[in-house]
Amino acid sequence: MTSVRDAAFELFRERGMTTIFGNPGSTELAMLGPLPEDFRYVLGLQEAVAVGMADGFAQASGNVTHVNLHTAPGLGNGVGAIFTARANKAPLLITAGQQARSLVTMQANLTNRDAVEVPKPYVKWGHEPLRAADVPFALAQAIHHATLPPKGPAFVSIPMDDWTSEIAPVDYVTHIARSVAGASQPDPAQVAALAKRLRAAKRPMFVAGPEIDASGGWDAAIELVESQRLPVWASPATGGGRIGFPENHPAFQGLLPPAVAPLAQTLAGHDLVLVAGSSVFPYYPNIPGDFLPDGAELLAITSDPDEAARAPMGDAIVADVALTLRALVRELSDPTDREPPPARVEIEAPPPGDELTGGEVHTTLAELFPEDGIIVLESPSSTSALRNNLRLARPGSYYFSAGGGLGFGLAAALGVQLAQPERQVVCVLGEGSAQYAITAFWSAAAYAIPVKFLVLRNHEYAILKWFASLENVTGAPALELPRLDVAATAASYGVPSSTVSGREELRDGLADALAQDGPRLVQVDVAAGMTFA
Amino acid sequence: MTSVRDAAFELFRERGMTTIFGNPGSTELAMLGPLPEDFRYVLGLQEAVAVGMADGFAQASGNVTHVNLHTAPGLGNGVGAIFTARANKAPLLITAGQQARSLVTMQANLTNRDAVEVPKPYVKWGHEPLRAADVPFALAQAIHHATLPPKGPAFVSIPMDDWTSEIAPVDYVTHIARSVAGASQPDPAQVAALAKRLRAAKRPMFVAGPEIDASGGWDAAIELVESQRLPVWASPATGGGRIGFPENHPAFQGLLPPAVAPLAQTLAGHDLVLVAGSSVFPYYPNIPGDFLPDGAELLAITSDPDEAARAPMGDAIVADVALTLRALVRELSDPTDREPPPARVEIEAPPPGDELTGGEVHTTLAELFPEDGIIVLESPSSTSALRNNLRLARPGSYYFSAGGGLGFGLAAALGVQLAQPERQVVCVLGEGSAQYAITAFWSAAAYAIPVKFLVLRNHEYAILKWFASLENVTGAPALELPRLDVAATAASYGVPSSTVSGREELRDGLADALAQDGPRLVQVDVAAGMTFA
Repeated sequence: MTSVRDAAFELFRERGMTTIFGNPGSTELAMLGPLPEDFRYVLGLQEAVAVGMADGFAQASGNVTHVNLHTAPGLGNGVGAIFTARANKAPLLITAGQQARSLVTMQANLTNRDAVEVPKPYVKWGHEPLRAADVPFALAQAIHHATLPPKGPAFVSIPMDDWTSEIAPVDYVTHIARSVAGASQPDPAQVAALAKRLRAAKRPMFVAGPEIDASGGWDAAIELVESQRLPVWASPATGGGRIGFPENHPAFQGLLPPAVAPLAQTLAGHDLVLVAGSSVFPYYPNIPGDFLPDGAELLAITSDPDEAARAPMGDAIVADVALTLRALVRELSDPTDREPPPARVEIEAPPPGDELTGGEVHTTLAELFPEDGIIVLESPSSTSALRNNLRLARPGSYYFSAGGGLGFGLAAALGVQLAQPERQVVCVLGEGSAQYAITAFWSAAAYAIPVKFLVLRNHEYAILKWFASLENVTGAPALELPRLDVAATAASYGVPSSTVSGREELRDGLADALAQDGPRLVQVDVAAGMTFA
Repeated sequence: MTSVRDAAFELFRERGMTTIFGNPGSTELAMLGPLPEDFRYVLGLQEAVAVGMADGFAQASGNVTHVNLHTAPGLGNGVGAIFTARANKAPLLITAGQQARSLVTMQANLTNRDAVEVPKPYVKWGHEPLRAADVPFALAQAIHHATLPPKGPAFVSIPMDDWTSEIAPVDYVTHIARSVAGASQPDPAQVAALAKRLRAAKRPMFVAGPEIDASGGWDAAIELVESQRLPVWASPATGGGRIGFPENHPAFQGLLPPAVAPLAQTLAGHDLVLVAGSSVFPYYPNIPGDFLPDGAELLAITSDPDEAARAPMGDAIVADVALTLRALVRELSDPTDREPPPARVEIEAPPPGDELTGGEVHTTLAELFPEDGIIVLESPSSTSALRNNLRLARPGSYYFSAGGGLGFGLAAALGVQLAQPERQVVCVLGEGSAQYAITAFWSAAAYAIPVKFLVLRNHEYAILKWFASLENVTGAPALELPRLDVAATAASYGVPSSTVSGREELRDGLADALAQDGPRLVQVDVAAGMTFA
């Protein structure tokens, strides 16, 4: 006989899940104490922070990551971040405590009523075991669901008195020993058909999506693009949680615009659009039009059946993106006689004005950015400007909230840094974005996580003003953000912080921050409005 | 013809819902701009703040209150606060933006997939209209659901392109003109039967729950208690979102303990337990035992069918609490010959030590507290100590998170103060509790909301250490909270703040804060551990 707790920790240990993120409550104490010595617990002061950190850690480590929340209110605080984790395809095991079994039917205080209902749209699987003995089995299932393609969060609700229950070997030994794998290559006939379409295309192009990075497909994508002389566009930044192709590559053309009509215009002139590892497409805002230009066909490769099914145009193959690209490279060993892709058309930066623009900030950042650095980005008014300036060129170098919600960046940066301690993480935030999970600064300081934060302060929700102009809306309230001082707030949590203005101070401040050991923050005042270059 | 937007604002205006709380996103812009001049929008920098402010405003104003959130991620961030609002029975209209109708089936970015699923366990009603023309009707229905007993949140998901749709009078005129009322008194036969049981009881007692306050039943409760010479206990603090009886009244005995066995022990010797306006009971933690002492019967009055159904013992009457108490007073006009209730047994405060205790802080607060002041409380280690020291004695003077989740207090205090501008709100927080909706300090400063914040800093999650000892758990991580400085964080958001130590400094700091016009914060260091007196 063993306890549910011992069986669960054996499972976690077997899967390398020895870092637990969370915010504890009374319903989780019996799980947490005493924490085995080979485990570490990383505390977030609010659940959006705990889930965000776990999301970053899961994506940057590639391993399923455990985040533990406090019954209904704790789980509730985390739902926005769980939505984002689902969009990011982050493999998370989310556990939440539940009242004692004997007190649930009466809905005693802190009962998680209908525990699996709330996160249901955003988790791949959710379960509350009917017997304590099934908890390790449920945890194992959740781990399998989280790691099978497409990766994502899975949820288990666990009554607080289950952890000390004694269970027999038959209840857990075979269950937790199982491995379940699901990365698949398409039927060779499908690969041959796809190769044939590509060979026959006169002016094919390649759209690189985030799943290339997540599946380890950079090399295959580069090889395919080079051998087939394909111009490459990044999938729209809105849904691009990761970067799938080196953005300094000669074949790279830029970022697809995120709205229907402009995106189709960008595809004009191509007869085959090969999309790898992206939904088709993460459109936002709503600028209607034809989905494809005349004469263009589209084919998408994705491991996500839902992405494949819900695209409004084009064909799709559901399979592992990296494996499919590699198979395609092998199938297309014959050289092409196509012209090489044209040079990228550069977006012209506006002339320098009195105030620093986001683009100028990112030019400076690009100059100082370490070669193996990692960007975690949540600065909606300067997303494109950052991408266009930094031209990140290594796998696993960029993390962004693919769902469109705010609150991911600040917390996720900590998880990414913990998973990649040898690489420098730079977290780029708007001062408004930083507010959704602001207490992550405490975790940065408390665990001495050496993320460097760069905060662009424009005193407004710039992207909302931009959307308002697109939607012909005037007079919306609360688009100004006066008196926010993220440097002061971060300092209050123990992160050494400075505020700079102008390019000189910015360069010095950033260089100094990057030279330090622990977390550091540089806040820079920038001009109002959106910046794209 | 009119627009959906104009019809909706006409509805809001008719219902006095001219204050909108929210955190805006692109999917809400078409609703918000231009905001009619007789409306005000109160911005929270994170959704837990927006919902918490609305919860406080709804409870303290008694009117259904509108909170507007940003599609899936914004709604998600607010779910913990929606859980709390449901537990608090706060009448909220929660609206969230949705992608444009034409982009939902493809799940374009920021689509709120299964929009009504996520908040379902915590809202009384949720709907996403199938036609733009039905939006005003859905909003009206949600308002009815929110205000019918038991009050609570209701939810409408609204595609962003609906607001500008033109609709005909037949689509909205009669719908938004309806009034729906539901406060009910029980059948006179039930009142007579209850009166008979009370008359026949030798040693009856009265348990005062939060719904007495919400239903306007203080006077009736006092009259009943005095005429029938009933000793009065407050329902357990865990679920006591409001106070239903003057805690300085000679009949008042104290707070019922929140666990099964000790609660039953406290009831010992009584033959009839009359519970008004509380669930039976909001138990926490799990200390099992008999639910009632030998020889005791229980009868509960609640407007909440769910509370009535799920109690594990006793009878229940589902009706408006104030109306039922008044009917009972009328029915029991004959005097009783029972002995008056005994004097309250005082909990002895521990002798003063080197460090200030939470109890000593609340003694000081009680000395300075304005007669018509309002407490909003979220300091889990000193809840009982505050109640035992302040002995609040006026209706609408106390708001607490009835569900057991954190993040309510700081935000709700702002809403309460906005709804009750003539009364001084004092918000009492633990430094850990303050973190769950910390950016509310910005809203306090930005809107000059004159709440006085009192933060008790004990450098730990004291209540979790206490629960761990109850559950025999050792070695749980993350129960220490080093290096939190709420005064510095609040100051970074613009709230003038000070940190004091010792009783003298505390008294001076609090007195000074109470004398000022705008928001002020006093942080005081206290001894570790729980305090009850």
